[in-house]
Amino acid sequence: MARVLTPRAEDFPRWYQDLISKAELADNGPVRGTMVIRPTAYAIWERMQADMDTRIKAAGAENAYFPLFIPESYLKREAEHVEGFSPELAVVTHGGGKQLAEPVVVRPTSETVIGEFMAKWVDSYRDLPLLLNQWANVVRWEMRPRVFLRTSEFLWQEGHTAHATEADAKDYTLKIHHEVYERHMRDLLAIPVVLGRKTNRERFAGATSTYTLEAMMGDGKALQMGTSHELGQNFAKAFDIGYSSQAGTREFAWTTSWGTSTRMLGGLIMCHGDDNGMRIPPALAPVQALVTVVKETDGSITSAARTLVEDLAAAGVRVKLDDRVDTPFGRRAVDAELKGYPIRVEVGPRDLAEGRVVLVRRFDGSKTPLQLGEAVGAVTAALEADQKALYDEALARREANTVEVSTLDEAMEAAGTGWARVPWSAVGVDGEALANERAITVRCLFRADGSIPASQDEPDLTAILARSY
Amino acid sequence: MARVLTPRAEDFPRWYQDLISKAELADNGPVRGTMVIRPTAYAIWERMQADMDTRIKAAGAENAYFPLFIPESYLKREAEHVEGFSPELAVVTHGGGKQLAEPVVVRPTSETVIGEFMAKWVDSYRDLPLLLNQWANVVRWEMRPRVFLRTSEFLWQEGHTAHATEADAKDYTLKIHHEVYERHMRDLLAIPVVLGRKTNRERFAGATSTYTLEAMMGDGKALQMGTSHELGQNFAKAFDIGYSSQAGTREFAWTTSWGTSTRMLGGLIMCHGDDNGMRIPPALAPVQALVTVVKETDGSITSAARTLVEDLAAAGVRVKLDDRVDTPFGRRAVDAELKGYPIRVEVGPRDLAEGRVVLVRRFDGSKTPLQLGEAVGAVTAALEADQKALYDEALARREANTVEVSTLDEAMEAAGTGWARVPWSAVGVDGEALANERAITVRCLFRADGSIPASQDEPDLTAILARSY
Ligand SMILES: [Zn+2]
Ligand SMILES: [Zn+2]
Repeated sequence: MARVLTPRAEDFPRWYQDLISKAELADNGPVRGTMVIRPTAYAIWERMQADMDTRIKAAGAENAYFPLFIPESYLKREAEHVEGFSPELAVVTHGGGKQLAEPVVVRPTSETVIGEFMAKWVDSYRDLPLLLNQWANVVRWEMRPRVFLRTSEFLWQEGHTAHATEADAKDYTLKIHHEVYERHMRDLLAIPVVLGRKTNRERFAGATSTYTLEAMMGDGKALQMGTSHELGQNFAKAFDIGYSSQAGTREFAWTTSWGTSTRMLGGLIMCHGDDNGMRIPPALAPVQALVTVVKETDGSITSAARTLVEDLAAAGVRVKLDDRVDTPFGRRAVDAELKGYPIRVEVGPRDLAEGRVVLVRRFDGSKTPLQLGEAVGAVTAALEADQKALYDEALARREANTVEVSTLDEAMEAAGTGWARVPWSAVGVDGEALANERAITVRCLFRADGSIPASQDEPDLTAILARSY
Repeated sequence: MARVLTPRAEDFPRWYQDLISKAELADNGPVRGTMVIRPTAYAIWERMQADMDTRIKAAGAENAYFPLFIPESYLKREAEHVEGFSPELAVVTHGGGKQLAEPVVVRPTSETVIGEFMAKWVDSYRDLPLLLNQWANVVRWEMRPRVFLRTSEFLWQEGHTAHATEADAKDYTLKIHHEVYERHMRDLLAIPVVLGRKTNRERFAGATSTYTLEAMMGDGKALQMGTSHELGQNFAKAFDIGYSSQAGTREFAWTTSWGTSTRMLGGLIMCHGDDNGMRIPPALAPVQALVTVVKETDGSITSAARTLVEDLAAAGVRVKLDDRVDTPFGRRAVDAELKGYPIRVEVGPRDLAEGRVVLVRRFDGSKTPLQLGEAVGAVTAALEADQKALYDEALARREANTVEVSTLDEAMEAAGTGWARVPWSAVGVDGEALANERAITVRCLFRADGSIPASQDEPDLTAILARSY
């Protein structure tokens, strides 16, 4: 097969851009840093949304929608929050042909405006917990944009909750982190993630604790796939989210927020993609099996392919027919590899004359001739196997590219090509600042048993150091 | 039951506002004209989206996502378009802490930016038709905002398609209009709609034909529930959406656009709502049946209610348990009426002692005692009957409040309280201008057989004149 993409080993960023363009996933928008998500990628995003939404609802949160426009004054009420977001804001100064009395920012995130309404809706302890989520676009002006990974506008879900106690807020944040995010990434995206705590330096602007899920990409760098935050009483005090307790006293609520975005599409590409294109995990793939008519003779090939499509659909497989026989077979095969359909079934005259079709697995490129009668069973088995195989391969790569070290110098050395696991005590806040100067960050901290610490000051924590997106 | 809402007959706009507030559907946002869609209303919107999305995909369109921000220069390329939208634009002048070289508008609609990308993606007749849709927020600065009906930001779907011929473009626009919009409104929302053509005066800025679906609200006014536009070659020429034909010549494409929005939530409230609150059609309702524990004695009432909830769920009913027995029953009943659950099943000690429950239909307020064993069958039958009953009632109201007249004066008189059906020839463009001065508009034009005309200049057209939202 001719070389379609720049090989990953040659130039990973260029491979990524090539792939996004040739698989028709996205385009750059006309305003710097914005993107157009094309149908091929958007269909994947819709399946991510559906799965995530189901999990969020199962965790008890309800969807709502809050305004895109936020008064500039709202952001200023939480000091760290405004400091963190000010450099990234898009500001609307004119509306309806007139200069606005107060400039309005396009939401970079919605803690402030949602805080304002939580304050209106929460009155008594009976109104808590208040568990909200919204699917929305947000804007953070990007100086060095890269499609899906860093864009001036992106799509996401942002959960916002208010609780009566700090313990409740913590429990719920960790529940979302484990039961919604980790499972979504593991079971649907087939991406192994390390859960941990962000250092104070890397914490969300306005949070008391930020939890992250970090994944290793094909080039050994880390990608933050999602974050969940305990906001303490910072926003509750700034927006007066108070409630009367069972004992009759007036208390401030404890709030949380948590988000995942179209950035996961970038993670998906960079975790599973190979030199021929995307590899979409079968559980996620909008089209799991592409049945390809290799070429047509008297109409019987397409007819056999159609029957197979029907049989696969009846077996619950998301299947599509490629009968564009006026386009060369080779070109269609290259396109299918680029788009990453998990399974191709090639139906051609020569094989069909002997009652056979060929099963092509995107995972490893293997081609297996099959009797037509075996095809449905073989496809469903391959879909299940390759979901697991992609996860296992990603996990093995992460293990192979993670080095256990004991000093900061060794960690910075290892982080040049992969991840370093190092005692946090060997890094510390000074070591972290030093690593940052070399474009290496502390991705997260976790305890010896893998659990998430309550503070970066706990003893015996392990840190992951890496370069990142 | 105590009066909860201002009665419709006393003050319809106040009834609407009361209802939106007391049923916890929405709040005004902090920036003028924006809204917060609360979970109760958002859950309805999600079901509208799911149904609409399925129909749009069945019509062959694929979802994509285009940027929120559009360069100001794009809007100026189509003269009528920019003239129509300029007064309503929100303009971003600062991004990332700097003044922007070119101001950016927040999309009021996406014909321009999508046109730009259609031009990139379409090359040959083989690339046509190109059928796209997006779910997005849009901004049109509102001077006289009203929640759901006219808001500075609203949520919608906007379809955008490009075709090789004018006939294809027309056929597809009408297909969307009939097969997607009309059926969605009729079969899911139980709202009868009149399909017709907008006059040239009421046409979308940049379109050659605008088709509308008009519904009568509870006060006799009209609401435009959705519109579909043929854009001719206006945008194709402005954005150079060209293709090489089968004959090898270079041609401009023909484009269309079509949209429905959260405004439909306002239509739903004003079409079906009564003096006690919303009435949600069963097919649409996120919760179709509320099983209410009237009061508890020894735990057996709640236990019986739970069993009924399980049985209803097993029968495919979307059901919810109300076991908040510490809140007075009367208050819960008022809340259920406000929120418009189609069916309530009241489970109380006295009835249950005799093996009975009470079925309350929101449609007509009727209360029917039932043997527990009959409950599931009665609920499913009532859900089906009341979906139809709401439609029939709305249709009967529309007929009763539509007057057939033959002169403009009579039409303007009739439009004071309802709709007027009048020969378009008796109105004409001068009559239309005159009616507009009295806040009466021509809602649409149709032929004697009800079909949609190709121009307002066809003979023998009928016009609907009415006040509107
Ligand atoms: Zn976990
Ligand atoms: Zn029709």
